[in-house]
Amino acid sequence: MELAAFFPMWDQLTETQRQTLTQIAVRRQAQAGAVLHRGSDDCLGLLLVESGQLRASLLSPEGREITIYRLFPRDICLLSASCMMRSIQFDITIEAEKDTQFLLVPPDRFQALMAQSAPLANYTNEIMASRFSEVMWLMEQVMWKRFDQRLAQFLLEESALEGSQTLYLTHEKIANHLGTAREVVTRMLRYFQSEGMVQLRRGVVELTDRAKLEAM
Amino acid sequence: MELAAFFPMWDQLTETQRQTLTQIAVRRQAQAGAVLHRGSDDCLGLLLVESGQLRASLLSPEGREITIYRLFPRDICLLSASCMMRSIQFDITIEAEKDTQFLLVPPDRFQALMAQSAPLANYTNEIMASRFSEVMWLMEQVMWKRFDQRLAQFLLEESALEGSQTLYLTHEKIANHLGTAREVVTRMLRYFQSEGMVQLRRGVVELTDRAKLEAM
Repeated sequence: MELAAFFPMWDQLTETQRQTLTQIAVRRQAQAGAVLHRGSDDCLGLLLVESGQLRASLLSPEGREITIYRLFPRDICLLSASCMMRSIQFDITIEAEKDTQFLLVPPDRFQALMAQSAPLANYTNEIMASRFSEVMWLMEQVMWKRFDQRLAQFLLEESALEGSQTLYLTHEKIANHLGTAREVVTRMLRYFQSEGMVQLRRGVVELTDRAKLEAM
Repeated sequence: MELAAFFPMWDQLTETQRQTLTQIAVRRQAQAGAVLHRGSDDCLGLLLVESGQLRASLLSPEGREITIYRLFPRDICLLSASCMMRSIQFDITIEAEKDTQFLLVPPDRFQALMAQSAPLANYTNEIMASRFSEVMWLMEQVMWKRFDQRLAQFLLEESALEGSQTLYLTHEKIANHLGTAREVVTRMLRYFQSEGMVQLRRGVVELTDRAKLEAM
């Protein structure tokens, strides 16, 4: 994928800036399951997703987790370069959910470009604002939405992402996406099953009544 | 307060940019309780707090609320100018918690300056990153922390802000800060009272054992 595809303000960069960005970006691969960034220890750089899927999550001191957002082709992951901005004071984990190909831009070099280029700095601002919005949306979900609705929504989204009614997900894994305990997920899935909305097998959730799930 | 006090990169602006910023900033006052910004309807501009205290909160469709962060003298409120960035997709409410004096910078004029000045754009980035961090911190609290600990922490923080052990706060108001129901607050405060940590009167919470609250 061309670098220009990631930066809508590409034409507003100088020729030198475009060349620099092209030279410093290196192509990398990550296998599904690989952890690319873990908290404040790492400062890998910006990840420009070419193919595959990344997941950003927040971990509790006790090892619980919740999915903060996902990144798809054409998305830029900024928080894997959080050392670029000293005001970012939180730790997230970024892992590949599918085999992923991405361009990696070193944080110090990108920061130097942002310091020169107002269009690049403003675009970085837009990216951060959009991740911020996703976190605020999640916050609203967690604060005000009932867990049955969040679970139904999660199953429908997973089904759309996988293009299948059959989801290979353990209850543990679902709990880690939604930031709750496994028992809570199991209890709710059994209720969904009793209502005919899903069919449960070991490590598998099959959606059997999408309309009813959507109605929730 | 001088504008330069709000912008540590003031020296990196051109003379013209400094003059523009000085000309477009107007001084405003808000009385305690006044709502300055409500969701996406408004786009007041940047608020540079000179004195007083602002509170940013998130509202649920059912009217519940939670405090997202507070702004004190020398802080810049960016989200009251959210129209500046199309990627900001969430609605918050900003109100004055105390009588507040601030400088108001119109969003379109500030946006024009950011488009010219990389230092200003990068500094705006830092401000957003720091609000983002506060929201992530809150998210961690809400997700992983027990409610008794959050309430104890809130009471201690309020006491520090007011410089007093006597807090004039209804249970309803506390619930709106912490994003929960009034009954939940009442139940927990009564438990705190039975443990000798607070003394309750109508509309008043008196901290009677700080050490015990801090230990939580």
